[in-house]
Amino acid sequence: MKRAAFFVSDRTAITAEMMGHSLLTQFESIEFEQINLPFIDSVEKAEQAVVQINAAAEHYACKPLLFITLIDRAVIKVIEQSEGMIFDLLNTFIHPLEQELGIHSAHAVGRSHGMRVYSTYKLRIDALNFSLANDDGNTLKHFPKADIILLGVSRSGKTPSCLFLALQYGILAANYPLVDDDLESSRLPEVLKPYRDKLFGLTIAPERLQQIRKERRPDSSYAEYQQCQYEVNAVEKIYRAQHIPFLDTSAVSIEEIATTILQTSGLERRLHG
Amino acid sequence: MKRAAFFVSDRTAITAEMMGHSLLTQFESIEFEQINLPFIDSVEKAEQAVVQINAAAEHYACKPLLFITLIDRAVIKVIEQSEGMIFDLLNTFIHPLEQELGIHSAHAVGRSHGMRVYSTYKLRIDALNFSLANDDGNTLKHFPKADIILLGVSRSGKTPSCLFLALQYGILAANYPLVDDDLESSRLPEVLKPYRDKLFGLTIAPERLQQIRKERRPDSSYAEYQQCQYEVNAVEKIYRAQHIPFLDTSAVSIEEIATTILQTSGLERRLHG
Repeated sequence: MKRAAFFVSDRTAITAEMMGHSLLTQFESIEFEQINLPFIDSVEKAEQAVVQINAAAEHYACKPLLFITLIDRAVIKVIEQSEGMIFDLLNTFIHPLEQELGIHSAHAVGRSHGMRVYSTYKLRIDALNFSLANDDGNTLKHFPKADIILLGVSRSGKTPSCLFLALQYGILAANYPLVDDDLESSRLPEVLKPYRDKLFGLTIAPERLQQIRKERRPDSSYAEYQQCQYEVNAVEKIYRAQHIPFLDTSAVSIEEIATTILQTSGLERRLHG
Repeated sequence: MKRAAFFVSDRTAITAEMMGHSLLTQFESIEFEQINLPFIDSVEKAEQAVVQINAAAEHYACKPLLFITLIDRAVIKVIEQSEGMIFDLLNTFIHPLEQELGIHSAHAVGRSHGMRVYSTYKLRIDALNFSLANDDGNTLKHFPKADIILLGVSRSGKTPSCLFLALQYGILAANYPLVDDDLESSRLPEVLKPYRDKLFGLTIAPERLQQIRKERRPDSSYAEYQQCQYEVNAVEKIYRAQHIPFLDTSAVSIEEIATTILQTSGLERRLHG
């Protein structure tokens, strides 16, 4: 049995989708066709959405689930006339919040994203540019400005983690790959010593590292199991000797890596939500 | 008056934070101290969280707001004993969903993120690597594999948009900067012609472009208003002549750019939520 699930929002529908997705994963025996309906910010667009929702109701011969983050009452009224079942992710909580806070909510659309605050946008883009400019140790000159510097062997997840920290939290994240010379000496590279408080290590299971490297460069010595095992052992030895906090990324998502780094390092975020 | 707002989750708390943040923006007259409490996946961690919540209650002399995405009943019970007011973002909807779907939910922790599915993780990392390898027109050889190719003048938002499309939706997004030679000829560069169906243009207000370029390279001709105006006019002329869909990024967030591109181009996402 299959069903349609719609994520309906006056903005990007990303929040509605994340919440809806979290809920649906609790019902894994049912297969869902998941449809995003972003930018439903007028009665006309809501009417078009209803046509699509009702078509899905007919196609699957059961009520589509509608996870909505809509503020405009007029738009919600139109959606309510569809054949979907509504889970109102915002308004369900607005009334109890009003009660607790003792004030009325603004009922204003698009407050959470959008370019309302240019400084927020700029923070994020600056963080992203910082990550890109300070990727893979290609320059060290911006390290004094970095909020955090990720260490790790090649393909242990440094770059995606830096980019996610920048996009999600506005963190200035640089990274530095530990290569054979560093690993052989078992010492922290001299250039990193001034930034000891900003260092955070990534590690990874050798099997997993081999798998990732193989896809990238099959038949290279770089992707041999022994080489991977040697590098991982050596890098962890450095982390331990130098008391650098570190995380095994083998079985965690990028979100989890980023969140753990923030939590472990006590780093202040520059962006919220 | 200031209040504490906690986002409490058994995983990253990113979903709780996004939802909570959306709700709090509807009450802008109140200032909130926003605190993420991720990985609250045991009774012990919940007890530590309660200490922190109660300290905030005392500090601000009012109930902290708790936006929670917790599955484990034992953990929730501990949090309920705190002095915070709970907004249960998941369980509020689980029961009506069970009713509608006619089955019980799994009540399993950490289903939405995490590395449960390696193929999903790989999709995302592959998309991110694709974006990085195909940034700023530095190579064209992977263009046949691209899901979409963003066009635009320097600093119009191509790179952040590509990275966001990769991280959020697993889209293989390349980008190609239109430079003076292209703009002068008013023609689509020959190398792009085979990929006409994959092209999407970005544009930006000249004032805004100037502002961004000035921060990057002050006192350059590159950042002069006239140059910015010339480039923007020329690039929009190409988009119109070639019927390339395009978007003005001046007043929209990266999320909104990415969502609009998906919607306008009818692109299939490789990742959901």
